[in-house]
Amino acid sequence: MMLSTIAQLALIFAAAKVAGEVMVRLGQPAVIGELLAGVALGPSIAGWIHPSEPLQVLAQIGVVVLLFLVGLETHPDDLRKVGVRATAVAVVGVVLSFGGGLGAALATGFGGTESLFVATALVATSVSITARVLRESNLVDTYVGRLILGAALIDDILGLILLAIVAGSTRGTLRIWSVVALAAEALAFVALAVLVAPKIVGRIADLFDRPRIPRAPFALAMMAMLGLSAAANTIGLASVIGAFLAGMALAETRDRYQLMAQVEPLGDFLSPFFFVLTGARIELAALGSGRVIGLAALITVVAVVGKAVASLAAGRDMELRDRAIIAAGMIPRGEVGIIVAALALSEGAIGKQAFSAVIAMVLVTTLLAPSALRLALKTSTRTDPPALPLA
Amino acid sequence: MMLSTIAQLALIFAAAKVAGEVMVRLGQPAVIGELLAGVALGPSIAGWIHPSEPLQVLAQIGVVVLLFLVGLETHPDDLRKVGVRATAVAVVGVVLSFGGGLGAALATGFGGTESLFVATALVATSVSITARVLRESNLVDTYVGRLILGAALIDDILGLILLAIVAGSTRGTLRIWSVVALAAEALAFVALAVLVAPKIVGRIADLFDRPRIPRAPFALAMMAMLGLSAAANTIGLASVIGAFLAGMALAETRDRYQLMAQVEPLGDFLSPFFFVLTGARIELAALGSGRVIGLAALITVVAVVGKAVASLAAGRDMELRDRAIIAAGMIPRGEVGIIVAALALSEGAIGKQAFSAVIAMVLVTTLLAPSALRLALKTSTRTDPPALPLA
Repeated sequence: MMLSTIAQLALIFAAAKVAGEVMVRLGQPAVIGELLAGVALGPSIAGWIHPSEPLQVLAQIGVVVLLFLVGLETHPDDLRKVGVRATAVAVVGVVLSFGGGLGAALATGFGGTESLFVATALVATSVSITARVLRESNLVDTYVGRLILGAALIDDILGLILLAIVAGSTRGTLRIWSVVALAAEALAFVALAVLVAPKIVGRIADLFDRPRIPRAPFALAMMAMLGLSAAANTIGLASVIGAFLAGMALAETRDRYQLMAQVEPLGDFLSPFFFVLTGARIELAALGSGRVIGLAALITVVAVVGKAVASLAAGRDMELRDRAIIAAGMIPRGEVGIIVAALALSEGAIGKQAFSAVIAMVLVTTLLAPSALRLALKTSTRTDPPALPLA
Repeated sequence: MMLSTIAQLALIFAAAKVAGEVMVRLGQPAVIGELLAGVALGPSIAGWIHPSEPLQVLAQIGVVVLLFLVGLETHPDDLRKVGVRATAVAVVGVVLSFGGGLGAALATGFGGTESLFVATALVATSVSITARVLRESNLVDTYVGRLILGAALIDDILGLILLAIVAGSTRGTLRIWSVVALAAEALAFVALAVLVAPKIVGRIADLFDRPRIPRAPFALAMMAMLGLSAAANTIGLASVIGAFLAGMALAETRDRYQLMAQVEPLGDFLSPFFFVLTGARIELAALGSGRVIGLAALITVVAVVGKAVASLAAGRDMELRDRAIIAAGMIPRGEVGIIVAALALSEGAIGKQAFSAVIAMVLVTTLLAPSALRLALKTSTRTDPPALPLA
């Protein structure tokens, strides 16, 4: 069945919301429902939606808005406070995931180049899925929440730098200076966005001097969001990083709460397209082979164990419960993994089998994370308070 | 220069808002700024944005949200009250515009088929631009405002039926029953949307019984909006008609004001893509020929005069000022005209010249309407109240 674009939009949105509602009633986060709705509607099962270019752009805007919202909830100071620990968690997690992924792929009999790309697809925690899960669990505004987000942002950037290295070396065009340049650009971009963007936005607002168009602060915020997303994209970072930084730049303005009330419906409307389309990318048919299932299972274990061990790097003084939350929060892989796998597939560096294993790992880790987080939240570091004595 | 999609989005949005702000400061409506921003960024001048498929889908969602908002401000009863007058204005306006347009195109030396399509492109008032102008002038919630909207909705439907007739007859495949079927479908759709949709939405809300996902009324509203847009599209009507009817179905629910507060930012964010892209469709180069300018000028005059005369059909008891407002409000041609011209061009029924003349007419009438409306609002039917006597 070939549906018109507007019919596909209607179907995706309705399925996402209904499945989300069902999942919430079952005690699961809504995001799982949206992902499963995508699997059901996608080419593997119903075949009613196809990840066409317009849908992908809409999905991209949806995830950009979501990360902007998360940024709005994050004060730069809060992120600075978790900086050292987040970096440690990110670096250890990246190293373990990459090493483990490489070993797993080679052990399953994949070639060197393929294994390098599979390993690269494993390193980055999904900022968008983590952010969504943290928001649903009201954890964004907590110390561990910020630590997870900070580490996820850092390993996204590390993942993209790693991609530049792996792609360059397998093509035989690796130039050290281009990798150094990308890393320097990423650092400079983050520094500029955190230090300079808030001032520029303030200056533009002054320049307008009591703007006449309705909801002008919202319009300025959306300009900052799209502008920094495009800027991030231009220098080779994921656009969601720019969107997050734009939100953070506005987290300290007096319009923050009004902005959140205005941007939240926008996120409600647009982000389901991202999660449903992510679900629709899985090809169940490619999972028929034992080798693919083996690789998928192995790299899923690596993905989970790698980040669990990385959570130890947060420092010995952290409570067991907080470490468990960090470990669970870092599990989901997402857009960077998909980007790496899709790029490698289109360049012929990996085959359909390795691609499907990566996408399956992305889906399983994403489906796993919310339940793992729920379990972690129940972990107690202390004995329970004594029951009240009966009267 | 080839910009990435996200960079085009950032550019379109920022240009729309800045140009809108400038226009409001010059005492003009913001929508003119958005249209001119499109002309400036489009292929004719800067060439920075291209009406690619993703941008067109985004623009379509933007105009769907806008018409949904206008629907939210329109009670079905209000529209019923203007029914007879609106139908009279619509029918007279369609007949005059079609006749005048046919004469103008034949007089400028265009062939019969081309002239038929040019005339068809002239009949329908642009619901979206009219709605935007009425909103900016705070006229949606007035008697004339509703009359204009009602007439614009009716002539949109008449225009699409006329297109079916003209396209069928020039292809030699005209079947009376298919035209009758389209007309019947359109009527049945409007009747169902007005009478049944509110109940279905209410029933779904009951079924959910205190939904658990956040902002559930908003999610339901967006489902209704996308669902009815897709349904309208499926039976051959413009999707904006479905969106308007969905909004109207929800205009009487208790969530109305909260919904408006949530949907307005969505409209602010998405509708600029529609108006900028409309502006970007104009090809200044094709306007170099005297014949094209002649046709464009003639059909623009027909477009204005046709609706001015049609406003007389509203009835003799209307005040001069209200008639002037109706005449001005019905001037802009838009999406239906563009749809007709684009379809005819892609089928080879009209050439680039006639196409450009139609698009120029759409742009000029759209740019003209806000100023005409402002003038009409100043028209007085009574003598001014006497100045207060000096003490």
